[in-house]
Amino acid sequence: MSERYTVGVDFGTESGRAVVVRVSDGLELASAITPYPHGVMDVALPSGKPLPPEWALQHPEDYLLVFKEAVPAALAKSGVDPSEVVGVGIDFTACTVLPTLSDGTPLCFLPEFMDEPHAYVKLWKHHAAQPQADRINALAEERGETWLPRYGGKISSEWLLAKSLQMLEEAPAVYKRAERILEAADWVVWRLCGRETRNTCTAGYKAIYQDGHYPSREYLAALNPGFADLAETRLGKELTPLGAKAGELTEEAAAWTGLKPGIAVATANVDAHVTVPAAGVVEPGRMVAIMGTSTCHMVMSESLREVPGMCGVVDGGIIPGLYGYEAGQSGVGDIFAWFIKNAAPPEYVSQDVSAHERLEQEAAQQKPGEHGLLALDWVNGNRSVLVDASLSGMILGLTLGTRAPDIYRALIEATAYGTRLIIETFRQNGVAIEEYVAAGGLPKNHMLMQIYADVLGMPISVIDSEQGPALGSAMHAAVAAGIYPDIRAAAKQMGKVRKNAYMPIAEHQKIYDQLYEEYITLHDYFGRGGNDVMRRLKQLSKQVGS
Amino acid sequence: MSERYTVGVDFGTESGRAVVVRVSDGLELASAITPYPHGVMDVALPSGKPLPPEWALQHPEDYLLVFKEAVPAALAKSGVDPSEVVGVGIDFTACTVLPTLSDGTPLCFLPEFMDEPHAYVKLWKHHAAQPQADRINALAEERGETWLPRYGGKISSEWLLAKSLQMLEEAPAVYKRAERILEAADWVVWRLCGRETRNTCTAGYKAIYQDGHYPSREYLAALNPGFADLAETRLGKELTPLGAKAGELTEEAAAWTGLKPGIAVATANVDAHVTVPAAGVVEPGRMVAIMGTSTCHMVMSESLREVPGMCGVVDGGIIPGLYGYEAGQSGVGDIFAWFIKNAAPPEYVSQDVSAHERLEQEAAQQKPGEHGLLALDWVNGNRSVLVDASLSGMILGLTLGTRAPDIYRALIEATAYGTRLIIETFRQNGVAIEEYVAAGGLPKNHMLMQIYADVLGMPISVIDSEQGPALGSAMHAAVAAGIYPDIRAAAKQMGKVRKNAYMPIAEHQKIYDQLYEEYITLHDYFGRGGNDVMRRLKQLSKQVGS
Repeated sequence: MSERYTVGVDFGTESGRAVVVRVSDGLELASAITPYPHGVMDVALPSGKPLPPEWALQHPEDYLLVFKEAVPAALAKSGVDPSEVVGVGIDFTACTVLPTLSDGTPLCFLPEFMDEPHAYVKLWKHHAAQPQADRINALAEERGETWLPRYGGKISSEWLLAKSLQMLEEAPAVYKRAERILEAADWVVWRLCGRETRNTCTAGYKAIYQDGHYPSREYLAALNPGFADLAETRLGKELTPLGAKAGELTEEAAAWTGLKPGIAVATANVDAHVTVPAAGVVEPGRMVAIMGTSTCHMVMSESLREVPGMCGVVDGGIIPGLYGYEAGQSGVGDIFAWFIKNAAPPEYVSQDVSAHERLEQEAAQQKPGEHGLLALDWVNGNRSVLVDASLSGMILGLTLGTRAPDIYRALIEATAYGTRLIIETFRQNGVAIEEYVAAGGLPKNHMLMQIYADVLGMPISVIDSEQGPALGSAMHAAVAAGIYPDIRAAAKQMGKVRKNAYMPIAEHQKIYDQLYEEYITLHDYFGRGGNDVMRRLKQLSKQVGS
Repeated sequence: MSERYTVGVDFGTESGRAVVVRVSDGLELASAITPYPHGVMDVALPSGKPLPPEWALQHPEDYLLVFKEAVPAALAKSGVDPSEVVGVGIDFTACTVLPTLSDGTPLCFLPEFMDEPHAYVKLWKHHAAQPQADRINALAEERGETWLPRYGGKISSEWLLAKSLQMLEEAPAVYKRAERILEAADWVVWRLCGRETRNTCTAGYKAIYQDGHYPSREYLAALNPGFADLAETRLGKELTPLGAKAGELTEEAAAWTGLKPGIAVATANVDAHVTVPAAGVVEPGRMVAIMGTSTCHMVMSESLREVPGMCGVVDGGIIPGLYGYEAGQSGVGDIFAWFIKNAAPPEYVSQDVSAHERLEQEAAQQKPGEHGLLALDWVNGNRSVLVDASLSGMILGLTLGTRAPDIYRALIEATAYGTRLIIETFRQNGVAIEEYVAAGGLPKNHMLMQIYADVLGMPISVIDSEQGPALGSAMHAAVAAGIYPDIRAAAKQMGKVRKNAYMPIAEHQKIYDQLYEEYITLHDYFGRGGNDVMRRLKQLSKQVGS
């Protein structure tokens, strides 16, 4: 039997990456990257029209360019014959959302809307819909909407509801013309196979699809009378499960990509979520953490629980047949980068060795507790479990002997305590977690990983791929092509993980247990109403700064 | 009438400075500095014999060199004829203490003790007597010694009692041979005039002389039976008030200095305390702060009060006839220096402009509250009002937008809040304070001074001399010489101050009042038992580090 291959395409914030993967064992043969020509538009439209603060847009043409350049380039490098490629799958950032006509034409392609910001793709980090999000939350709480607790009590301004409401209220003509509002993830799949689908993952986590329906007409009308028919008209009625075939590659898309027309196109997925099976995780109790500038935690369970402060729980949101839970830390790698840029002295910042390496060299020689510091990891706010962007970072224990590697280590430890609290909150609410599987960019930092193992008191496995999302997309393509009966079977063959790469050291664990108790005391004091000084300071800063 | 002059000599930690001053108006004509050849001996004796950690010794010969070099050099530079010099006065670091024979010969001058560390001068920052200090405090508390509350409930390991007890217990032969134990301040005056005196200032603040006597024989015996006669034998029985004439310059000392024999020698004084009249302050209610690596606060009152957490209150300790109060912050300039060395990024640390200036340039443009930060100024522990070295620094409000000038400003503000709490504690306990007079090295930082004025809500005056202590000593010499009837009259003519150099800005005051309330809440939470995490972290650090 000849080998077969699939192509996985990962749409990131700045570029798209295509990977050619062998279906029998997940071997990644070749990859190619296409940067988006328009990048992130947060200052102006292509016409030069300036954008207000907090905006972040993209141009949908850029995504098609990835199909036209990265896919054929990866294919050529791999040496694989296009006739051996049986399917293609994609994953995307989310919630990244755009308005289109009923045939999928983006409104920004229409000449009359070219200069209209709301006609473009709103990238996940578009934060200008906060006033709408505040009203969405207040109203949901007031009405006792049953879906609210499934999102930790808070709908983000990044999600579809807030971004769509902003469109209606600020650009009613665009909203009126928008026959569809959909995730870019679903839009590119539509471009590939000519058929409109909506995947369970983004519908659940970003468009508040729960128990078979979106938020009710009554709720939407109460937000704004013009918003009443959002779900009925502009969002897809039927969801397609992850791993299902969305359709077959069109002649047009085959010409772009160099692939054969008619091969399977998998349902769209989200970069973080698709990484879970890529790390070989398809069962309850194994948390996968995408650790980068921020960290996204995903874990599955057979039962539906309302866990305080989680980002969301969605039936089939990660793997069909299981409830997928998501939590997050809004600042992790970002905090370390902030520290190095703003608080590391010259001796640690030089050309030849990275500051991270220098700081790690010294910090790694310390025993837990030796630096005498304790920090709260809220430098970029708190996503889980407090869901409060107005919190801020704290460090104590500073003495005249405190040096940069001490603070660096304390910040890493603080993020580990934050992760442990998320895990314990899941457990206390009936979601079991026995293993921590690390993915993303941070796991290459050995000291950090060992600290996490010691703080969490759990074995840590590490994904064994540099391009987890694209690998996961290729796996879903193999399922969509019928090579594997489901993603469980695909993950068994194609998933890649170094099991138990880091094991907790008992002696360290004991000290970190003590320090974690101290962390919790401060977490609750500053985060749960003991002393709201952080909120007051942010408010004062805004007042005097304005 | 021809002009008359006095010489003030300030004995610092690394060198001695002589200043020639015109008596009529305090004009400083010339000065000269002699570095101590032996410096601070904290590693080894002159013989090479190593010293244990926490030791800090000096060599008394070095002090005499200041008389032989700096005084004649300053005199020559001034162009003043020695016959026009009517007196000499000195001030010293304290508690800086040495053992001598009954004729004043330092024990370290005796051949048999040359290699004996305890025979040398123990400098103020000798910290090896902490075990003795702990016992001194525990016993005083147990016995309810009435003098204990006059020192904020804690006798420092730096003071005469602890240093002497350490001598007795570690080198009984030295202690036995020590016919006198006295401040280096009093010792150099003895060398000048041939007469042993003990000044009220060091006797009160450092040797626990209260209500006409040192600690009782019973108390001393309970510390150690061999210690029972310390006060009766080795400390001076009679005290000499500040400004009094200790004696007249001997022929020998006249030959060293180039001054005329028989001129007045003033009673010894302490560098911080002598600065008070140098800044023109001789009355109650005007606090003088010597602001440097740490800050020493001095204020006078007509009545005796026990103020919690003060360093000491002494009758005539600053100005005869008034109770002199002292408080302190153990880290101020030290904290800013620590920050620049360990937490300022390369862009602020370069050759041409000092990091302080660069940080101040940016930080000074901010409005109060704008950076959103709040810090506790305990990076070097807390001296007043908590008297707890096991506390540590804290900063909160950190965000990804926080930059080095923000933190720099927040640390300065934290020290200002600490000062305000000391002032308010004085006031609450019946010691009035209406004005803040700044001396020392920090007042040249304009932003810092304005922040202090805004936080304290008081006018700040600034001493108008670069050599306040030496000027103060010269003033006392003028009193001892009979030129002025007392230090009040001398201060009126010779004291130098820029009155109301900084005035509080009402708009800033309002914001700092809010922030000060936040500071107090955190101060009490971490410092008064709400959460002893700082103490536990230091303990853990010692445990795992050992």
